[in-house]
Amino acid sequence: MQSSKRIRPVILSGGSGTRLWPLSTDAKPKQFLALVADRSMFQLTVQRVQRRDSFESPVIVGSIRHRDLIEQQLAEIGAEDSAIILEPAPRNTAAAIALAALASAPDETLLVMPSDHVIDDAEAFHAAVTAALPAARNGFLVTFGISPDRPEVGYGYIKQGEALISNAHRVDAFIEKPDVATARDFVERGCFLWNGGIFLFQASDFIAAMADHAPDVLDAAGKAMAARAEEGNCLFPEASSFSRSPAISIDYAVMEKARNVAVVPLDAGWSDLGSWDALFDHAMKDESGNVMTGDVHQIESYGCHIRTEGPLVAAVGVNDLIVLATRDHVLIVPRGQAQKVKAVVELLSLNRPDRK
Amino acid sequence: MQSSKRIRPVILSGGSGTRLWPLSTDAKPKQFLALVADRSMFQLTVQRVQRRDSFESPVIVGSIRHRDLIEQQLAEIGAEDSAIILEPAPRNTAAAIALAALASAPDETLLVMPSDHVIDDAEAFHAAVTAALPAARNGFLVTFGISPDRPEVGYGYIKQGEALISNAHRVDAFIEKPDVATARDFVERGCFLWNGGIFLFQASDFIAAMADHAPDVLDAAGKAMAARAEEGNCLFPEASSFSRSPAISIDYAVMEKARNVAVVPLDAGWSDLGSWDALFDHAMKDESGNVMTGDVHQIESYGCHIRTEGPLVAAVGVNDLIVLATRDHVLIVPRGQAQKVKAVVELLSLNRPDRK
Repeated sequence: MQSSKRIRPVILSGGSGTRLWPLSTDAKPKQFLALVADRSMFQLTVQRVQRRDSFESPVIVGSIRHRDLIEQQLAEIGAEDSAIILEPAPRNTAAAIALAALASAPDETLLVMPSDHVIDDAEAFHAAVTAALPAARNGFLVTFGISPDRPEVGYGYIKQGEALISNAHRVDAFIEKPDVATARDFVERGCFLWNGGIFLFQASDFIAAMADHAPDVLDAAGKAMAARAEEGNCLFPEASSFSRSPAISIDYAVMEKARNVAVVPLDAGWSDLGSWDALFDHAMKDESGNVMTGDVHQIESYGCHIRTEGPLVAAVGVNDLIVLATRDHVLIVPRGQAQKVKAVVELLSLNRPDRK
Repeated sequence: MQSSKRIRPVILSGGSGTRLWPLSTDAKPKQFLALVADRSMFQLTVQRVQRRDSFESPVIVGSIRHRDLIEQQLAEIGAEDSAIILEPAPRNTAAAIALAALASAPDETLLVMPSDHVIDDAEAFHAAVTAALPAARNGFLVTFGISPDRPEVGYGYIKQGEALISNAHRVDAFIEKPDVATARDFVERGCFLWNGGIFLFQASDFIAAMADHAPDVLDAAGKAMAARAEEGNCLFPEASSFSRSPAISIDYAVMEKARNVAVVPLDAGWSDLGSWDALFDHAMKDESGNVMTGDVHQIESYGCHIRTEGPLVAAVGVNDLIVLATRDHVLIVPRGQAQKVKAVVELLSLNRPDRK
């Protein structure tokens, strides 16, 4: 134990969220968009663990459909040495992480990260990872818990228990998305943290937990890896085996069931940017309180979030409005109602399957 | 007099308004857009006088830049026999009408019409024209006056005087765009009519009035016509002569100065559709009070005017908003503020001359 080995980052990029439609699409989901910087959130995630003193080159787990995007975005930031596991179909996070764990040496410590979240304070992030290392290297499956700054009902919560080692604590409970009264109570009581989907554990410990709690997922991932193809840095799990895995999250499959689970607090300016509202809150405002990206012009407009990747957008005399434009789609929704975007995407999918 | 000769329509299509930007552009101004029907307002104007029992084939006066549009739109409605006078440069209505008058026989009665207004009640329109004929054939320059239904400050007004013949009256005064208090007073008093820019007169009477009141316009138009080129139905006034004409409206140049001016009331569902607000007021609303044209989808949105010629537009939870989209431009402005579109166009023209 207390190995001096570097950590292996595992970056999950298989998601295809629709909450940032129309910019985020199945063909180019949120994590590949440059929404908060010149780089995409996927690239920012890779760069966050590009310190070769602490981290090995990363393992990317993504969709076969995004292979070109992944390779191109890795090349842009000098991360061509990453290993890329290309899922033949989406099977949620348990199966994705199983692929990465099976591709790793058993004693490697894996830092599993979504690629569609932002973390403003990289130093605080690395400090939390360092604080989590002793627990991970002592056989714990560590999850990182984010201190809630609002009674968010869209996230799962973790109830922090007794102190373990370094800054790690036992997990008393995982709580599914609460109602708003419960969420308010959680925020007041202070010992509840958001489940941010970031994990640190040894590959062998995760595989052992999978064997105990999600053997069908592990079996499917194992067979898919045994029959894999390879090409350069890319690894192609065999499709028919992998497709037999249940589509289940790591939380449901393992974390909520295993006993060797720990939580380490993370206070690093985390946001999942899960809606256009969240993105507005996160962004720098101009002197009129607007966030404007692309060829956007306004007159007498305040508190608006306007982005275009296509047509010029002119806004006159509008307040607190979100406007997103691409060459093919324009979305208009008031700020504070961005969660309704999902309903739009569903409506359009129903109306015209060709636009899905 | 009381000749049984048919009336010659003169249709002015040289305008290039920006108030319906971004759909209306210099390359395809408002009159060529199908905003209220399957046909453009230019086509609807031509069709309004396509009754061969009352009307000769029309004379179109338009811009050389719109030649293809004009010919194509005429062909679509079987009006290829129209004469087309193509102005080498815009010189406002006095010069445009002078070209048409000079191209006509002196004793022809000309019905001059803008091509970017709508008239819902064609029968009432024809009745007003018939009522105006005796005055026009007795040497009067007849203008049509629209009964105001609101204290509009964007139009000129005509004060109606003593009765002349048929339904024609003398004009006591032309009043420039009034302030709102004056406009309210006009609407209450009842003898004030909007100046709708529609005229009926004999070609010789108009030319005589031009010779008296705007000889420089007539001289430039006369020289341009003397040196004209022709090609099929198209007539090309000579450019350098025509460019020497002052750019002045028929109202300033002639109607406000001549003594032989009459007004005939017109109550035919007239609208100049001078803004997106006016177009919304004129259009049929759906059950949510929305006007939606093109690939538009809404959820929980009311009283909106949304048109697209390009991208799909999705509106969620917005009220009383105007949204216009083309492949290149998107405009968003609250209903009731559509007059600010001019400011947008000016802003964009200043910022980027290439987008003018």
